[in-house]
Amino acid sequence: MSLPKKIRIVEVGPRDGLQNEKKVISTELKAQFIRDLSDTGHQTIEVTSFVRPDRIPQMSDAKELFPLVRDLDKSADLVCLVPNLKGLELAASLGVKEIAVFTASSDTFNQRNINATISQSFERIEPVIKEALNQGMKVRGYVSTAFGCPYEGYVNPEKVREVAKRLEGLGCYELSLGDTVGTGSPLSVSRALDLILKDIDVSKIALHFHDTRGMALANIMKGLEYGVSVFDASAGGLGGCPYAKGATGNVATEDLVYLCQCLGIDCGVDLDKLTHASRRMLSELGKPTTSKFLQAYSNAKDANESLYLPTP
Amino acid sequence: MSLPKKIRIVEVGPRDGLQNEKKVISTELKAQFIRDLSDTGHQTIEVTSFVRPDRIPQMSDAKELFPLVRDLDKSADLVCLVPNLKGLELAASLGVKEIAVFTASSDTFNQRNINATISQSFERIEPVIKEALNQGMKVRGYVSTAFGCPYEGYVNPEKVREVAKRLEGLGCYELSLGDTVGTGSPLSVSRALDLILKDIDVSKIALHFHDTRGMALANIMKGLEYGVSVFDASAGGLGGCPYAKGATGNVATEDLVYLCQCLGIDCGVDLDKLTHASRRMLSELGKPTTSKFLQAYSNAKDANESLYLPTP
Repeated sequence: MSLPKKIRIVEVGPRDGLQNEKKVISTELKAQFIRDLSDTGHQTIEVTSFVRPDRIPQMSDAKELFPLVRDLDKSADLVCLVPNLKGLELAASLGVKEIAVFTASSDTFNQRNINATISQSFERIEPVIKEALNQGMKVRGYVSTAFGCPYEGYVNPEKVREVAKRLEGLGCYELSLGDTVGTGSPLSVSRALDLILKDIDVSKIALHFHDTRGMALANIMKGLEYGVSVFDASAGGLGGCPYAKGATGNVATEDLVYLCQCLGIDCGVDLDKLTHASRRMLSELGKPTTSKFLQAYSNAKDANESLYLPTP
Repeated sequence: MSLPKKIRIVEVGPRDGLQNEKKVISTELKAQFIRDLSDTGHQTIEVTSFVRPDRIPQMSDAKELFPLVRDLDKSADLVCLVPNLKGLELAASLGVKEIAVFTASSDTFNQRNINATISQSFERIEPVIKEALNQGMKVRGYVSTAFGCPYEGYVNPEKVREVAKRLEGLGCYELSLGDTVGTGSPLSVSRALDLILKDIDVSKIALHFHDTRGMALANIMKGLEYGVSVFDASAGGLGGCPYAKGATGNVATEDLVYLCQCLGIDCGVDLDKLTHASRRMLSELGKPTTSKFLQAYSNAKDANESLYLPTP
């Protein structure tokens, strides 16, 4: 197996994770959580999103939250999701240096999610990317439903390639292909990458898996085998899936860090500190983790037992 | 990706699964469970074990249970675990046609599990295999702790190869390499298979993963890529891990069947019937499933929603 020696994790717990948690967390606790995460060694943290407060209440404190964590940008890239020029303006005024924009590879999903076809969504995104780049920001692009759509089911990888290429062309430095509903498999990941890597250098591709059906680690493994070296994950597996009631959210960062440990891949994240950060937030939310590894790790720690961590 | 077109699942829920469940299930309910499982299309079901009743209370009704399901051997191989000649004699008297014997690739584990070194365990197993073969039975061999030991941690794949080869030499038609504590990874699976397949034909190898750390599907995927076509799994993820409190047991059969669905591999098991069997037993045990896929499937079914199942 030829795998990357090193990967970068994009920690999306504070945004994609918390956004899908019903219990609203105070701004102070969110800031603490982001500090805890930064302390693990994370190089990239998606901290919040500047969306309409009435649409996603959990993110309505973005303009109060960001200033509380801004100083962390000395050691980590702090990404903020931005849907439109208004959001960008606010982000810029607060000193945000990196934004993420999003669209999907399924028209039905985009219509229901943001009331715009893919084509219409680009009309919104283009000026945002342009202006952000003008201001010297970095821009990350999300392609949602890249491995399946909650409404259409199958998504043609040609569509994913087309959308990713367009985002790249507009100036996104990284394209995060999102398995929004967790219906991706090692086969669909393989097929999509076979196609997309013809046009886009693998160093620009990130994979963003939801573990709704328990397939995330197998999919990440396939991505690693293709040389992908950036993966999104959520501390403790925070989050859920609005399209599948009671389902698991993003792959847990712990699962990914543990996989790296087993494979001898450097991801720069301290596992013990990470589990501390996750458990503190899970306890606030009053919910158990969805990560089997974190469960095993926590059980061992609580019993003062040492946990065998394989080394390659 | 070159993968097998077809695999066989060894359903171990009634034995390895239930054995690790505290709540004792009545013999009638076990028989019903096995009938339900047979009805899914399963070709191989491990139904019980003929061990000392005081050691594993859940298995103490083996001699009452087997006659209740014996007629199913028209459509499926019914495997019974047998630790010694006494167990074999009892099994034979009941008309058992296939047994499984077990040892480990870690001396410490074997000492603590069955109070015998690996070498001593072979002294017990050899006459059992010989006699079973004499009586025309098929014999399956388990190699426990093949990817990690709860006491020793790392297990050298050379040891696994040696033990597997010896079992094969004694006449076992299939060698099931067991990740007893769930510390295997795609890398350790790959390393073990690189070595073992030098000596043993891939058609004789089965992989038996516990999902204690959420790595089972990634490991199975790696096994499939090596051409392995037999996998053990437990309906609904029944079971646990005596070496990791509160941990997950065998990989859920539903997870494996779903992976096969995604990859276009024929496993001969009806997913809907399988979830019915699992949910009935989980409800008896009063516990939720550990399978994220089964959870998503059940949620959709309960809400009368259709679940998108990818096809290759």
